[in-house]
Amino acid sequence: MVLKLGIPAGSLQEATFELFRKSGYNISVQPRSYIPTIDDDEVECLLIRAQEMARYVGNGSLDAGLTGHDWIVETNSDVKEVAELRFSKVSRRPVRWVLCVPEDSPIQTVQDLQGKHIATEGVGLTTQFLAKHGVTANVEFSWGATEVKAPKLADAIVEVTETGSSLKANKLRIVAEILQSTTRFIANHESYKDDWKRQKIDDMVLMLRATMAAEGKVGLMMNVPKAKLAEVIAILPALKNPTISGLSDDLWFSVSTIVDDSMVRKLIPELKSVGACGIVEYPISKIIE
Amino acid sequence: MVLKLGIPAGSLQEATFELFRKSGYNISVQPRSYIPTIDDDEVECLLIRAQEMARYVGNGSLDAGLTGHDWIVETNSDVKEVAELRFSKVSRRPVRWVLCVPEDSPIQTVQDLQGKHIATEGVGLTTQFLAKHGVTANVEFSWGATEVKAPKLADAIVEVTETGSSLKANKLRIVAEILQSTTRFIANHESYKDDWKRQKIDDMVLMLRATMAAEGKVGLMMNVPKAKLAEVIAILPALKNPTISGLSDDLWFSVSTIVDDSMVRKLIPELKSVGACGIVEYPISKIIE
Amino acid sequence: MVLKLGIPAGSLQEATFELFRKSGYNISVQPRSYIPTIDDDEVECLLIRAQEMARYVGNGSLDAGLTGHDWIVETNSDVKEVAELRFSKVSRRPVRWVLCVPEDSPIQTVQDLQGKHIATEGVGLTTQFLAKHGVTANVEFSWGATEVKAPKLADAIVEVTETGSSLKANKLRIVAEILQSTTRFIANHESYKDDWKRQKIDDMVLMLRATMAAEGKVGLMMNVPKAKLAEVIAILPALKNPTISGLSDDLWFSVSTIVDDSMVRKLIPELKSVGACGIVEYPISKIIE
Amino acid sequence: MVLKLGIPAGSLQEATFELFRKSGYNISVQPRSYIPTIDDDEVECLLIRAQEMARYVGNGSLDAGLTGHDWIVETNSDVKEVAELRFSKVSRRPVRWVLCVPEDSPIQTVQDLQGKHIATEGVGLTTQFLAKHGVTANVEFSWGATEVKAPKLADAIVEVTETGSSLKANKLRIVAEILQSTTRFIANHESYKDDWKRQKIDDMVLMLRATMAAEGKVGLMMNVPKAKLAEVIAILPALKNPTISGLSDDLWFSVSTIVDDSMVRKLIPELKSVGACGIVEYPISKIIE
Amino acid sequence: MVLKLGIPAGSLQEATFELFRKSGYNISVQPRSYIPTIDDDEVECLLIRAQEMARYVGNGSLDAGLTGHDWIVETNSDVKEVAELRFSKVSRRPVRWVLCVPEDSPIQTVQDLQGKHIATEGVGLTTQFLAKHGVTANVEFSWGATEVKAPKLADAIVEVTETGSSLKANKLRIVAEILQSTTRFIANHESYKDDWKRQKIDDMVLMLRATMAAEGKVGLMMNVPKAKLAEVIAILPALKNPTISGLSDDLWFSVSTIVDDSMVRKLIPELKSVGACGIVEYPISKIIE
Amino acid sequence: MVLKLGIPAGSLQEATFELFRKSGYNISVQPRSYIPTIDDDEVECLLIRAQEMARYVGNGSLDAGLTGHDWIVETNSDVKEVAELRFSKVSRRPVRWVLCVPEDSPIQTVQDLQGKHIATEGVGLTTQFLAKHGVTANVEFSWGATEVKAPKLADAIVEVTETGSSLKANKLRIVAEILQSTTRFIANHESYKDDWKRQKIDDMVLMLRATMAAEGKVGLMMNVPKAKLAEVIAILPALKNPTISGLSDDLWFSVSTIVDDSMVRKLIPELKSVGACGIVEYPISKIIE
Repeated sequence: MVLKLGIPAGSLQEATFELFRKSGYNISVQPRSYIPTIDDDEVECLLIRAQEMARYVGNGSLDAGLTGHDWIVETNSDVKEVAELRFSKVSRRPVRWVLCVPEDSPIQTVQDLQGKHIATEGVGLTTQFLAKHGVTANVEFSWGATEVKAPKLADAIVEVTETGSSLKANKLRIVAEILQSTTRFIANHESYKDDWKRQKIDDMVLMLRATMAAEGKVGLMMNVPKAKLAEVIAILPALKNPTISGLSDDLWFSVSTIVDDSMVRKLIPELKSVGACGIVEYPISKIIE
Repeated sequence: MVLKLGIPAGSLQEATFELFRKSGYNISVQPRSYIPTIDDDEVECLLIRAQEMARYVGNGSLDAGLTGHDWIVETNSDVKEVAELRFSKVSRRPVRWVLCVPEDSPIQTVQDLQGKHIATEGVGLTTQFLAKHGVTANVEFSWGATEVKAPKLADAIVEVTETGSSLKANKLRIVAEILQSTTRFIANHESYKDDWKRQKIDDMVLMLRATMAAEGKVGLMMNVPKAKLAEVIAILPALKNPTISGLSDDLWFSVSTIVDDSMVRKLIPELKSVGACGIVEYPISKIIE
Repeated sequence: MVLKLGIPAGSLQEATFELFRKSGYNISVQPRSYIPTIDDDEVECLLIRAQEMARYVGNGSLDAGLTGHDWIVETNSDVKEVAELRFSKVSRRPVRWVLCVPEDSPIQTVQDLQGKHIATEGVGLTTQFLAKHGVTANVEFSWGATEVKAPKLADAIVEVTETGSSLKANKLRIVAEILQSTTRFIANHESYKDDWKRQKIDDMVLMLRATMAAEGKVGLMMNVPKAKLAEVIAILPALKNPTISGLSDDLWFSVSTIVDDSMVRKLIPELKSVGACGIVEYPISKIIE
Repeated sequence: MVLKLGIPAGSLQEATFELFRKSGYNISVQPRSYIPTIDDDEVECLLIRAQEMARYVGNGSLDAGLTGHDWIVETNSDVKEVAELRFSKVSRRPVRWVLCVPEDSPIQTVQDLQGKHIATEGVGLTTQFLAKHGVTANVEFSWGATEVKAPKLADAIVEVTETGSSLKANKLRIVAEILQSTTRFIANHESYKDDWKRQKIDDMVLMLRATMAAEGKVGLMMNVPKAKLAEVIAILPALKNPTISGLSDDLWFSVSTIVDDSMVRKLIPELKSVGACGIVEYPISKIIE
Repeated sequence: MVLKLGIPAGSLQEATFELFRKSGYNISVQPRSYIPTIDDDEVECLLIRAQEMARYVGNGSLDAGLTGHDWIVETNSDVKEVAELRFSKVSRRPVRWVLCVPEDSPIQTVQDLQGKHIATEGVGLTTQFLAKHGVTANVEFSWGATEVKAPKLADAIVEVTETGSSLKANKLRIVAEILQSTTRFIANHESYKDDWKRQKIDDMVLMLRATMAAEGKVGLMMNVPKAKLAEVIAILPALKNPTISGLSDDLWFSVSTIVDDSMVRKLIPELKSVGACGIVEYPISKIIE
Repeated sequence: MVLKLGIPAGSLQEATFELFRKSGYNISVQPRSYIPTIDDDEVECLLIRAQEMARYVGNGSLDAGLTGHDWIVETNSDVKEVAELRFSKVSRRPVRWVLCVPEDSPIQTVQDLQGKHIATEGVGLTTQFLAKHGVTANVEFSWGATEVKAPKLADAIVEVTETGSSLKANKLRIVAEILQSTTRFIANHESYKDDWKRQKIDDMVLMLRATMAAEGKVGLMMNVPKAKLAEVIAILPALKNPTISGLSDDLWFSVSTIVDDSMVRKLIPELKSVGACGIVEYPISKIIE
């Protein structure tokens, strides 16, 4: 029995390999090959473009795969979205598909696009969006460099953006947001009904999530005098019950917990001020709550 | 008056800039911008993908541009092919679009593809080719990594290849060659009828060709005794009449010519053996014959 | 309310960003900008040269900043030195400002410099030092490459050195050490009297120190049989009371502590020989004692 | 008293420095020098080639050193093999010395090599091996690029290989495996009889092993309800007794253990399914069992 | 007899070495040394900062050197400016010293700066400029990152700029241009009166100029029929008389000349259209007119 | 008919490829292969180490090859030295094999080495040299890092050196020079007697020499008034007779010649001062005198 898993080639590829590696699955691929090896005999990987993933998971060529929500919508694929994954600098923030026009264009609303030329890599996304707004336009497939096309080659464009800096550089104005998108772990419906495959998928997702959860977190441990224990506990965030164990010396407790990385700079001065001492922060690599 | 010129973004971009620079036109572009500057007030450049160039030159959005012959066919565009350009390591050899199947596939001829699934970036090319052979198949657009798709995701693929090494690495067999393609300088038909624009285009092409012609050539000059002149002339290739001038000393001539780089190792020993001396090879940067 | 914080541009910049990042403050800066962003709404950063930091903290343009002790002395600034920071490879060892002459110079003591030419980037430092020794000399500002100036362009130089290798390469001999210097966290006196700002500064310094303290330390945990506990405790360094907790099995204790990285190679063989087992070393990222 | 230690120059050098650094010994070397400095006054290091290490440890020029088992055999040296070290990506898998011939050579067995020409860097290894099989051949020293020599310059070669890919690229077929080899920590017999030196060597080996053991392992800690403790313990691998301590809350235990990195993806889903919670994985840097 | 020559350390150093190398003088310097070696026994080089060059040439410590016109003015040095050098991408365009204020500052003219704080690396330049305008202000030495100082740390700044992009990035507005500056070859007045030194300097400058002149030029040679000679000559730029020699065949002339790189694209089509043929462009490396 | 040519693998490989490329032979090699391809059907290349080249040319496995004179001596091979090649920065200066001892060694002369231990990569060279001096010593093969071996592992070493800086860094003193060595083009004696092979080798050597000769030379051309011709000719070096041709204007001559790169800075000022004008220097790529 084998699970056929699609890995997105291109910009997400290295981040995906890294996430899997941290989660306990070593994937590697020879240059110029698209068939990665994985150290799990029950999994077969295939590198394909994110744009096509949903198509091939949907038609059962693959059991599961990773791709963006946007491409699921674009290809109108019927797949099971098992989990949302925000695992890399690249993918942590959702990307946005936006409808843009030149800064000085007379176009102000979606309705103004009636009959206009729109260039985009997401012809499906755009057509669905326009239909919802009752607008008909000439949506033309763009092979890239879409931002440069308005106004010279098109009246408007629909493009993906993260920070908006490329839009600004090309003097474009956003008319509407069409879609927000993050990475998803998707499965074929039939495959996910199979007990063995579902278990395999769920275990993999559990590990991926454990790794992602640990990325923004750290471990804290400290010694707390008996009298101050309640106060210390009160300060600690409720994310997870702290592990409290008595020390051989009956007057002290050892308290250990996991907290958000971003809270530590606030938490440590408070903990110290209420009497915790020997506070140690240590890195963690996975957490399952 | 201004000539709107499309420069192919992507793999050919740097080579194109370099070719233009050597030909006397300095083009540069800021990162993230697609509007290059050129040191000629009569030209406006736009960076767009080679795949779309013919479409926009065809509909008059651009007056002229550089693209591959393949994309002209793919997009079925009606443009004037002004010149063939073979200017970079990348583009010197024609690329080939080939129809491939897995090495052990039962498919042997184009006819065997009837009703099969074919993945390709060149849906237009492929459909035209199949039609010529009276074959109907499901030709699906591939976003890349096309080689990996047969046999897992398609029965056959149509892909561009230069050396064939990627095909070999993916254990694919060529069933048929669909097209050979090189880079072309194309113009809009209307623009090319305009006197000013045609002159502008022709001068530019003249300079590009002068640069390309010089790349595989070198200058040779030598002193030849009067008595040996005929023999030396006989050896020199007919590419261009050598420049022969008498030296102040009446017994010697100075002979200077341009020859193919690749002939020099054969030519020099011969020239020396028939009596030429002081043979000097020097680099050249342009040649107009 | 906002704390205006100066970050030293140049050689310490990346190390400073890294120290702050590890301490829970993410600072980043666009290329060519000098106004970094920090993920704390109560802090405003400014990148300025270490040489000028004390001037601007002293006059209240900034509330606090990081700079070297040497530049505080050089600019004769009146600032509060809140903490000494030794946080990077670059800054861990103090730098030394030394008065040097060519190896074969007749100058042997500070007194021999009376009336001589001295080139230095630290005109203030040097003048103060000479005054203390009752010496008057021509101290000229050097824009850099100071080592090359003696003897061709000056009789002596005053230069900063870490390893002395640049001095040796330029065949210079040290006559006197003028100053040792490390990085300091400094504050404006008025700002430090403000309760909110002092608390903000002290919390920040606490976190920076916790990070720096952790860099040369590791965590050790081990299981110890009841009978060997006293012996194990006796071996452990007194840096921090170890955390001792009884295991469910009454015959064993779990002992956990933090020790200097450099002691581990001595400590572990000893611990093992007195009966500790299951000794595990793990990395830590912050420690507050 | 000082221990003279040989460090292998070349491909293993950086990995050796790194292993020692992680084990608590900082070794560094100036470019072009072969005498590294180490932060232990009782050790003197010398960088020499792995091929010569056993010779110089054997004759007492060095007390100890690191080298491959192959070079001990090649040089027929009489040294104490204190420990096997598998510490880097480069050295984790044993290398193999193999006797190869061109794919289409008529040579099938070792016996077929009688009287033939064999090129190899391991003349000693090869001669010993042939002698064992009663074969006499012309074994010639090869300075490198040995794979290219058959069949043009030799009938067979003996070469070291890790993955076999270089053999395949040169169309060679393995006739016999001569030797497997890993890195060894070796000592001079006399030195190892000296109490002080043996202790020094053994402590060093203990630390190196603690570091290597930790590389493929991680720490796991979790909270377990009293009722599920036995079940959780049963799942945990027997590598090391887990540390179990009661929490202040009597219904829960804290369980902490060290497991193989490669088991985690299997273990965590199981632990979760039997009731463990708050499972945290953390990195470790040394382990002594 | 020896000429002491100062080479500017820092941003111009490599370009200066390159210019000298092309001009026939090989200069090189060991890392961390400031005394370059040159393959001319009659020259001694010293690397010093451009800011200090004029000071040391002025006082005779050096006979000659390269520096910017700005630093001659800044240090108010009395030196002979032998030649202006525009030799590298870095130095071809003059740099400009500009007086800037924040975009939204009320300051509009130089007069508005009366009594204000100005930060600058060019205290001398700025003070001289303000004096000419009858303005008195607090001009403070800035160690760098000057652009960031207005308005937080100063009311205005005086800074060097090439493209203005750094000013724009820091939202600064130019109030006045203080100075334009290019690189100069300067000499000490006394040294330049010495016959041997002046000759040495003049020869060096001749070679540097020959190299710089060649950088924007190319050689053109062509065959021209007798009847067209006058027409071809008329087209050629007057930069240098073309070399015209009769060919052995009396009906043709060989014409050879040097032209500006930037004219070639215009010239070649014209030359061809009036009957020149076999037009060859070749690179040149020095030209003395 | 085919010429089997050995190309030295390793430090000279890239320089050799480059020299051949400039000489008109394009050689390239796939990574991990040792059989380069060359664009000449009459030549077969093989990459082997310089140390072994003479052995395989000597025994006829190869017809010709490039290697150092030192390795010809070391292996005592009987080969035809067709030409000396000084073609790269690496090989332009001869390397020297020197016998060295520690700076403070009592050994002063070759005779003092009687009975001592000498480590060297050149066992043959060293033994031949000692024999000439009537000295017997233990010469041991060193795998590398030879400089570190004296005095810890050997009494003296014999090592190759270019600049002596590695010797100095290891505090070694040269007792005697054993050999100077440059790169040679060698041939098998039998092969060189074959007409076709000798012609092939001689043509190749002719081209290699033409390329090497051009590297340190440049072309000069200038216009000279009739009256000054004799004076100009007198100044020009005798390397090659200048080409003098009358210009159409009878009062001027065009003079063109090839000179040493290093003379140009002296020559041009002189030429100018005697009346040459329009002096142009241009690069050349081959010269056969």
